[in-house]
Amino acid sequence: MTTLEAQPGHVYLVGAGPGDPALLTVRAERLIRSAAVLLHDDLVSAEVVALARADAVVMNVGKRCGQKLITQEQIHELMIAHARAGAGVVRLKSGDPMIFGRAAEEIAALVEAHVPYEVIPGITAGFAAAALTGVSLTDRKHNSRVVITTRHLSTRPEGGDVAAPAAIESAIEGWFGPEDSSSTLIFYMPGRDYARTARELMAAGWESSAHVTLVSAASTQAQQIVQVPLSMLAETDPLPAPVVILIQAMR
Amino acid sequence: MTTLEAQPGHVYLVGAGPGDPALLTVRAERLIRSAAVLLHDDLVSAEVVALARADAVVMNVGKRCGQKLITQEQIHELMIAHARAGAGVVRLKSGDPMIFGRAAEEIAALVEAHVPYEVIPGITAGFAAAALTGVSLTDRKHNSRVVITTRHLSTRPEGGDVAAPAAIESAIEGWFGPEDSSSTLIFYMPGRDYARTARELMAAGWESSAHVTLVSAASTQAQQIVQVPLSMLAETDPLPAPVVILIQAMR
Repeated sequence: MTTLEAQPGHVYLVGAGPGDPALLTVRAERLIRSAAVLLHDDLVSAEVVALARADAVVMNVGKRCGQKLITQEQIHELMIAHARAGAGVVRLKSGDPMIFGRAAEEIAALVEAHVPYEVIPGITAGFAAAALTGVSLTDRKHNSRVVITTRHLSTRPEGGDVAAPAAIESAIEGWFGPEDSSSTLIFYMPGRDYARTARELMAAGWESSAHVTLVSAASTQAQQIVQVPLSMLAETDPLPAPVVILIQAMR
Repeated sequence: MTTLEAQPGHVYLVGAGPGDPALLTVRAERLIRSAAVLLHDDLVSAEVVALARADAVVMNVGKRCGQKLITQEQIHELMIAHARAGAGVVRLKSGDPMIFGRAAEEIAALVEAHVPYEVIPGITAGFAAAALTGVSLTDRKHNSRVVITTRHLSTRPEGGDVAAPAAIESAIEGWFGPEDSSSTLIFYMPGRDYARTARELMAAGWESSAHVTLVSAASTQAQQIVQVPLSMLAETDPLPAPVVILIQAMR
């Protein structure tokens, strides 16, 4: 339906998937290989970034541990300036660009600047974790719902990293309750305080027997998988970021 | 990390993505091109199936409108028999194999038969719909949660297609309530009775101003997109299956 190569003056918001370049979409791979400018987040794997053209302008515009190297506004300006200068620009985000990726803000900036853009989906970390661990997210007998959530974001102060405790509670409550045990919960950016996560889940009604699957750096050489009952989560050593946690009731 | 080609005696549960072959992962494409046997669902696009080797055994094992051409048990037997005969087998499912795809049952059968298997994720329809319409699933200011659900499945009688009304209500309630308007709801297999869907959403507290995005046959030549406020959903003409609906509160 579409040209696979990056076109001059266009911006492509591209999902880089979980890390393994073989889990890029065919289209994403071709765009990355053909773009004159590649602006990538910090969590995009080195193997994926290495696909860029030898003469491409490659720039890490991510932030690490809450420390911004570059503001969101500056990212908008870079995308727009390079596109107006005639470059094919790939804005590369780990996983899928439309989830926890600030795509809404970047799309709004591109629309306002009348820069043609396109979004190319990617394999999001939760789905990669499910595939790599063999944990099906749904089950026609017990489970027809998937909830993707995070503690961060919704009420995070601009530039801050930690939501207020009250906001955390309200984000958790109503989603982890026992009536929801027919869901699979996918928890992005869970942080390192697993004891707190375990406490919140149990307070909300999840049984201590619930299956918890933690996946760190899914699909990369650094991948780690830990599977424990919820009762053991508090004593589990934190895995290196990025981590996603899948939670399902025991049947 | 892995060999890209299908190995003899292995079964690969592969996500075919939404339809456009360019939205396959690199790994999925290589597996489809190299497999000796390809067992695909009905909704996998003809363009994707056409990537199979000229000498591959290609078989549609899907069902259409609830009419089974082949039972789930027979699918298990086919996968296992072909793998035991030494073929590299790709079991191809539309979207991502781990969501609404009966992967749990197929994995259990392969494990029981001691057949080596692997799951390769795919772009699920809801994420494809978001990318194609420019509707971000999350937003750091308002929205940090995505709920993927369907009316079908959880209590569907074996082989049946329609859940009991009570089951439908319980599947809907608690998930569409006003406290959840900070979520994006992705509704798979919504059926053709949009008036009922609109009624249920509004009964659960969604405002009539909520944004509703319907995407039919995402990423294929037959793709159709309709965007309406919830107040107009009841009068919207049903789109051809497969359809996903994205629902977000107006900000």
